[in-house]
Amino acid sequence: MSDIDVTNTRSRVDTVQQCLEDIKVILENNQHIELDSRGRTTLTQVLSGESYQDQSLIKLQERLDSMHPADIAAMLEQLPLDERLIVWNFIPSDVDGDVLLEVSDAVRETLIADMNTQELVAATEQLDADEIADLAPNLPEEVIADVFSSLSEEERLQLKAALSYPEGTVGALMDFEMVTVREDVALDVVMRYLRRLERLPPNTDKLFVVDRREVLKGVLSVSDLIVAAPDAQVCDVMSSDIVTFNPDRDAESAAHAFERYDLVSAPVVDAHSRIVGRMTITDIVDYIREDAEQESLGKVGLRDEDLFSSVWKSAKNRWLWLAVNLGTAFFASRVIGLFEHSIEKLVALAALMPIVAAIAGNSGNQTVALIVRALAFEEINKSNAKGLLRKELSIALVNGVLWGSVAGTFAWLLYGNIALGFVMLGAMLLNLIVGAGVGMLVPLFLQKMGRDPAIGSSVLLTFSTDSMGFLIFLGLATVFLV
Amino acid sequence: MSDIDVTNTRSRVDTVQQCLEDIKVILENNQHIELDSRGRTTLTQVLSGESYQDQSLIKLQERLDSMHPADIAAMLEQLPLDERLIVWNFIPSDVDGDVLLEVSDAVRETLIADMNTQELVAATEQLDADEIADLAPNLPEEVIADVFSSLSEEERLQLKAALSYPEGTVGALMDFEMVTVREDVALDVVMRYLRRLERLPPNTDKLFVVDRREVLKGVLSVSDLIVAAPDAQVCDVMSSDIVTFNPDRDAESAAHAFERYDLVSAPVVDAHSRIVGRMTITDIVDYIREDAEQESLGKVGLRDEDLFSSVWKSAKNRWLWLAVNLGTAFFASRVIGLFEHSIEKLVALAALMPIVAAIAGNSGNQTVALIVRALAFEEINKSNAKGLLRKELSIALVNGVLWGSVAGTFAWLLYGNIALGFVMLGAMLLNLIVGAGVGMLVPLFLQKMGRDPAIGSSVLLTFSTDSMGFLIFLGLATVFLV
Repeated sequence: MSDIDVTNTRSRVDTVQQCLEDIKVILENNQHIELDSRGRTTLTQVLSGESYQDQSLIKLQERLDSMHPADIAAMLEQLPLDERLIVWNFIPSDVDGDVLLEVSDAVRETLIADMNTQELVAATEQLDADEIADLAPNLPEEVIADVFSSLSEEERLQLKAALSYPEGTVGALMDFEMVTVREDVALDVVMRYLRRLERLPPNTDKLFVVDRREVLKGVLSVSDLIVAAPDAQVCDVMSSDIVTFNPDRDAESAAHAFERYDLVSAPVVDAHSRIVGRMTITDIVDYIREDAEQESLGKVGLRDEDLFSSVWKSAKNRWLWLAVNLGTAFFASRVIGLFEHSIEKLVALAALMPIVAAIAGNSGNQTVALIVRALAFEEINKSNAKGLLRKELSIALVNGVLWGSVAGTFAWLLYGNIALGFVMLGAMLLNLIVGAGVGMLVPLFLQKMGRDPAIGSSVLLTFSTDSMGFLIFLGLATVFLV
Repeated sequence: MSDIDVTNTRSRVDTVQQCLEDIKVILENNQHIELDSRGRTTLTQVLSGESYQDQSLIKLQERLDSMHPADIAAMLEQLPLDERLIVWNFIPSDVDGDVLLEVSDAVRETLIADMNTQELVAATEQLDADEIADLAPNLPEEVIADVFSSLSEEERLQLKAALSYPEGTVGALMDFEMVTVREDVALDVVMRYLRRLERLPPNTDKLFVVDRREVLKGVLSVSDLIVAAPDAQVCDVMSSDIVTFNPDRDAESAAHAFERYDLVSAPVVDAHSRIVGRMTITDIVDYIREDAEQESLGKVGLRDEDLFSSVWKSAKNRWLWLAVNLGTAFFASRVIGLFEHSIEKLVALAALMPIVAAIAGNSGNQTVALIVRALAFEEINKSNAKGLLRKELSIALVNGVLWGSVAGTFAWLLYGNIALGFVMLGAMLLNLIVGAGVGMLVPLFLQKMGRDPAIGSSVLLTFSTDSMGFLIFLGLATVFLV
């Protein structure tokens, strides 16, 4: 084993777990650490009292001081609200801002609610303009005003720019930490210039080459800067085949470009090719993660929810979705209501009808998943959409005949009624075709309307396959059986 | 506007679209370009004939020559199989390997099936050992044998190593392109050494500092290398607080570490801290994307499916999921069958029962989505799991009373039967609690079994809420109403 401090990820995760256990022990041993409505006050009293001498408190403080802000954030997200606020007050104040950036929106709200204006302004002092812009939606107005007046003229312009782009655009994700150089200097001059900067911005894999008017002329990769002859000119070494982004572009397409072209950073330019900012892979990875999270929660009608928020707040977060689904379920119920007479005569219909609705819903959701993915990767265009619809309908036909026969045979054997079996087969076949058509067209329609097809498609699909499933099955049964 | 070739992403996407349109025109104008079972032969004949003179063919070839392999891959994925194979034969052979790496698994299979052994071996010649390992599962055995014998001793060992780690581990994702330096040399010596390399591997944001036995001592960031004094020693500038990975670790946790600590590259070390490879953000981004895709398809029981595969092949890809769901639907149908006597007496039950099942399913799926996300971010541990279960059950209680009352009132007003309304309320309340409990426990159970909780949870949940919904509602109705 080496004797250096190779902190691998396992030991970092262990540190978080260790910390969580420490906190538990401390809170158990110090039952008098209780929170009033504003955790800080009580804690300050505790700290000024005798328990401040408590070895375990000092140990916790030491551990927190050495932790990465992202690890602190992960730990805070795992703590119930009251414990979270106690620990939050132990966090060294110089990382407050970084921790706020790392935690989820819902947890951030709980932390900010616990801080006063002065603390919030102090927390933002360590942050760059683009990072302040990320926090801005959660900050009280007076804090933003205070922060704004404390910024330099340049930072103020950057903050204004970052705030002016709507969420989900390149402009809202970009930062302003770029190193620009001129094309008519030698590489060793660039090197001397960089040395004077003392540190390069994170993710600097390339320098941006601009002219006097900040118009982008090319990029100089750091790798080329190191490898090429020191007396070579920037313009001879730089690349002019560059991937650039416009700040108004949607972040989604920027993410695809970063994936496709394996980028670490890329310049953001305005319509006149003037450089206005920089996108980095770090922002892209965060965006991809948040986007995936929002989608998986959005599919079940949730906004970001703090795992430890109150029962009442969580319950309310789930209402809209339940109300919408209750509406669609009522509608399907009324479709069944139309055929109550038939069900009274042949009660087997009641037991069989959910099968018709469910299988078409499942099959249609397979179509939705494939189409949503293809839309995300821009694989569907005008020329192939019709062919794809034809293919999905053909698959529904094949699967309808096959699984409709299985279900029909089941119905026939169970109820000894062969006509019932054929009605089952026919209804399954027709409803699978409904599922395929709706599963294909709904995502395309939502995309066209500028909505995220991953989010609404499944509800609309299930609504259709339920209602149509009941209508087709009970309708056919009424015509042929009753 | 600047006069340099600033190729922004929009124009790259346009190139792909332009290419697709060119291909369409060419194929329409050359109806005799038809494919037999092996596209190449026919195409060769075409090219040697008069239509080779066709200006549009030459234009297409020029366009393809200038395209990025990732763009070519995207275009191939958008083409139906026959057109895809025609275009594939126009692709310059020196990017064949890169294109194969970029396309999806399903499309890769169709392209490889179109190539002979010689072409496949040639395609792998441009690739690194870790990239060959990525293609290996799709390559015929004789090709792998040929490729293996053409590699250098070092590359052979690397390929063996890469193939030895199961999919989804750090070892399967790592590459071998690392620059290592010793700690007792000056930075300007390191610089001279790098200059001799002519190019640095992609994503080189840090050099790995090792001793004679390849044991990792620290990392030297390229940024520090540039900025620090040239006569400083590596050991004085390097950082020894490093995030490292073990090749056996799961890629998922590596992805979290890259996100958390904003990494671009990181060393992979064995149990003795000896360096064995390198992880880069490029591999991580590809992994995240593929993982998200697999999950969204896996949720509806699909493996990767080529958008343009045959109807028959696609239909079969969907069977397992439909069979499983037909099984669960049959089971739920038999639960209803138990109460046919009650339904005959009170047919309103048939119309109302799907509401009870559906709302609990929707509510339970909200719980599943939150728990799956929390598991992915390691936010759930032994100490908070019980509290979370209590919270989810409480929310179900609140929502059950609320939405149960709405549904109960609806049933009462519609059928003029207040007892029916109370049965509806009771059944909704109980089934929402079932949904919350199952929605919480199933993902935890799947995770414990080493399965992906994102994939199986929803099916098991819906199975429970359907069957239990029918059982509870019809059971209560039988006891109190019939």
